[in-house]
Order: sequence, then C-alpha cells, then structure tokens
Amino acid sequence: MELAMIGLGRMGNNMAIRLLQGGHRVVAWNRSYDKTDLLAREHGAHATKSLAEVIAQLKPPRVVWLMLPSGETTEKAIDDFLALLAKDDILIDGGNSNFHDTMRRADKVSARGVHYMDAGTSGGVWGLQVGYCLMIGGEKKIFDSCAPIFNTLAPPNGYAYVGKSGAGHFVKMAHNGIEYGMMQAIGEGFEILQKSPFDLDLRAIAALWNQGSVVRSWLMELTERAFAQDGNDLKNIRGYVQDSGEGRWTIQQAIDTDVPAPIITLSLLMRFASRQNESFSAKVLAAQRNQFGGHAVKRE
Amino acid sequence: MELAMIGLGRMGNNMAIRLLQGGHRVVAWNRSYDKTDLLAREHGAHATKSLAEVIAQLKPPRVVWLMLPSGETTEKAIDDFLALLAKDDILIDGGNSNFHDTMRRADKVSARGVHYMDAGTSGGVWGLQVGYCLMIGGEKKIFDSCAPIFNTLAPPNGYAYVGKSGAGHFVKMAHNGIEYGMMQAIGEGFEILQKSPFDLDLRAIAALWNQGSVVRSWLMELTERAFAQDGNDLKNIRGYVQDSGEGRWTIQQAIDTDVPAPIITLSLLMRFASRQNESFSAKVLAAQRNQFGGHAVKRE
Repeated sequence: MELAMIGLGRMGNNMAIRLLQGGHRVVAWNRSYDKTDLLAREHGAHATKSLAEVIAQLKPPRVVWLMLPSGETTEKAIDDFLALLAKDDILIDGGNSNFHDTMRRADKVSARGVHYMDAGTSGGVWGLQVGYCLMIGGEKKIFDSCAPIFNTLAPPNGYAYVGKSGAGHFVKMAHNGIEYGMMQAIGEGFEILQKSPFDLDLRAIAALWNQGSVVRSWLMELTERAFAQDGNDLKNIRGYVQDSGEGRWTIQQAIDTDVPAPIITLSLLMRFASRQNESFSAKVLAAQRNQFGGHAVKRE
Repeated sequence: MELAMIGLGRMGNNMAIRLLQGGHRVVAWNRSYDKTDLLAREHGAHATKSLAEVIAQLKPPRVVWLMLPSGETTEKAIDDFLALLAKDDILIDGGNSNFHDTMRRADKVSARGVHYMDAGTSGGVWGLQVGYCLMIGGEKKIFDSCAPIFNTLAPPNGYAYVGKSGAGHFVKMAHNGIEYGMMQAIGEGFEILQKSPFDLDLRAIAALWNQGSVVRSWLMELTERAFAQDGNDLKNIRGYVQDSGEGRWTIQQAIDTDVPAPIITLSLLMRFASRQNESFSAKVLAAQRNQFGGHAVKRE
C-alpha cells in the first residue's frame, strides 16, 4: 500500500523503515527536513517538505499515519490535515494520545467524512527488528482496509482490532500502566539482590531468570542487557526515572472507574520520588521526630 | 547419573519424570507410597518405602534431592538423612526454604562431612515440559559434579551457580518477590480494562500483548490461557489469593537491608486484602466518616 508517515522520531522513523522494507510506498514528513531527507536517501521514502505536498503525493483514499508527540502537536496536525484531506481518506494516530482526546477527535474527524483510527503502538526502539504490537480502535471496515500496513508493522499475530475509536489508545494506556508496575517490581527485586549477603552476579541472574522461570519476560531480557552493557552496578546510569503520561492516565482512569490499582499508582509515585534529591515530606518527618523525641536530625 | 528424589508433590513428581526421561536412575520416596508406586510403574523410578532403603539403593557418593514443603518437614528430612548418609554424599534442598535456614543447615550438614546444596527451583507445573530454572548455591565443585542432573532438569542455559550456601534460595526468594509485583500489576491492568467504556476482549488483548509489546512475558501467556479457559469474566475463579511465604521473606529481607521495596510489599498486602470478606479498617473508616461528617454508613 501507500501511506504518509508524519513525524520521524524514534518511533516514526523506524516504523517508516519497516514499512519501506515491507515494500510499501512511504511519503514522509518531519518537522526538521534533514531526517526526512536521510530516510529518503537511505531507505527510499518519498520526502516532502509540506503537508500539502504529502496530500499531493498520495492517491485517494489517502492513508496518513501520525507519529507525533501526544497533546497539542497531534491536535494541531489533525486540524491541519482536516483542512487538506478529502472524504474517505484515513487518518491514523499511532502516538500515545489520551483516549478521551481520541474519542473527541474521532467525532471531529468523522464529521468531515474522514475516517479516524487510533493505533496504540508498543515496541520501542526494538520494534524495527521485532515488529510493533498494535492495538487498534475505530471502524472495523477501515481497520480491514489497512491490514497490509498493520501486517508489515507488527510481528505475527501482533496487531488486533480492539473496538471503537479510543479503544486502541485505552488498551495501550493500560499496557503502559502494567509496564510501570512490572518495571518497579523488577527494580526492587534487583536492589534486594544487590544488597544481599552474597556476592551475586546480577547480569547472570537476569539471564538465568529468562530460562524457564516464572518471571521470564521481555523486560527481564532488557534488564540482562542493561547489566551486560553498564555493569552490575549500573555505575553510569542515574536512578532518575521520567514518565511520559500514560501512567498518570491509567491511574486517573482507575480513579474514574473506582478500580483499586495501588501497584500501578505507587509505581508512578516511585518515579516521582526518584527525581527528588531530597523529599520535603522526609524533612517534615525528620523535624517531627526531633520535636517529639529529641531524635537527632541531619543539619544542612 | 543416579539420585534420590524425596517428595513427589507437584514439583518433585514432575522433576523425577523429567530426570527419568533424561536417562537418569531415580530412586523415589514419598510420604504416601501410592505416588511412589505410580512413578515406578509408569516412568521407571526405583520405588522405596523407607529412607534406609533409599540409602541402600544408591552407590556412594550418593545424591539425595529433597523436594519437600519448607520448614519443619524439610528440617526433619535433613536430620533423618544426616543419620544415614556417609561422608561426601550430597544433599540438595530443591524446595522453597528460607535462605537463613539454608545457611544454618549447611553448617550442620557439612559438619558431618556431607555436602549441602540449595537449588531454588522455578517453573511450576510447566517445568516438566519447559524445564526448571535452577538457582544453585553451595560448593562450586559439588555443583560441577551434579551438572548432569541440573542439565536434564533445566532448559538450555536454565541453571547457574549463584554463590555459597543460601545464595540459591536467596535468589529464588527475590524471584518470587518480583513475581508478586508483576502479577499484581497485570491484575490491576486487566481490571482497568474490564471496567472500561469499551467492550474489550481480555483474552485477545493478553494474546496481542504477547506479540512484540513491552509487557510480553510468561505471566502474560498464562493470563491469556486463564481467560481462554475460564472466560473473560473468570466467572468460576474467586478473587482470593494465597501466598506461600517467599513474598513475606522478600519483604523481611528488604527491611533487614533498608531497601525500599513498596511494590513487592504492597503486592503481598493486596493478597491479604483479597482474603477478607470485609476489612476491619474499612469499618473503622466508615464509622469515623459517620462520626465527623454524619455520612451514612451501611448497616449490617
């Protein structure tokens, strides 16, 4: 098939390469043209410098895949494309949009006769090689018409239609919430191993656990890789963990639907804690212990 | 090689079968003889009715693998075997013993000239088919001498020497702590999916997530299997979760070494909560809200 890939970040660029390797025609656009140019020269994408040029390069019904930062950037791209796309064209948001936004945008887009699909995309930097797991929401018949694209992007059985507009991003959101909890559990387990009375080889243990144990997983494989790359003390990696929003949305959704999800919630809070050089709540506790028990405090 | 398998529960029986299928001679003993007899008739084990008979059936240096409930049962079996084993015989505890017990027992056993090994064993009921992940502590040269046994029990690269006596059970303990957290994260994620505004097929999503997503894992494969077996509502399974001790020990170890491990800790506490029909702390909260704000309480 042919499609446009809008946004050549870590995800979009690799997805475009995988699509080109799969024989699709990819019309590429990126905010900075040098990445577009590189993709064209090295992998055979059709480079464009404007959204109007993207539209001109595609035969109707057009398929435009957005792989942009969620929020304002995606919203603006949708509005820009809505001014250019024709009836029955297809706009796919493959980014990490909030499913509430997706449901709202689906109404806006379909009011113009354009089909809107949401494709939650997992796989990270490994997706190019392994394939991307795609969780897809929208109209089933549009999903079917785009199957050749999904089939190339995903590993075998790695894409599915999960429901109406928003369902794809909803499922991806919950996926990321689970990911937060699994990562934190693995992190804590390895800290316990690291502070053990034994002189344990963390890399070897991660490798071992990937063979037949109950915790074998892709995340454990990546953990092994991290120890192999940075040593068992991860000396050059700071214990500072960012988040990119889906964890927050998962927790908000848990709150909105009265689901007790303490592990996912606490996993996000532990990321917040990881970013503090010092916790103000800990200062308060230290001060209180000093007040009621005369316990020594560490002074600045 | 030849060895004795002591204890033919879900783990020990399957391990004996895997060893017999691998060409080892297995002298079997179990508290109730019918299981021993069955293993002998169906898989060619040498059945015994007493520990003395076990000893008589093995050529020195003997290898005796204990696969018994941890605690008193294992302690007693060790004492019983110590009265029977000769210098340079090898006693392996493959159960889920606490590593502090293992360290103490290693001293007791080695004082009698017998070699003691601890083999943390993961794999559950799937181990017969997939192989068991073995985390092994004790003397390295004894580990080497038992390699043919480990090699048959484990999948490729699925066993390793992790350190001195106790290290095997320590690593297995941390493994189970991680398992608690991963399981709880997955459980919470699926509850959020189940209470979503979309009509999601949980089995299909678990299957999808095992193809290229970041959360792909053995536990996710088992989750898919559970939904396939019991339906997306898991109608016939109560939300009541037991624990078998290793989670508690992991948390105790975290406390003993000042490791903040809130996710593993809370995952155990959530299992406690799952066993309560009603929480007394929730009763207290309801009563307090009634007291200070006149909020309605549900009456018995």
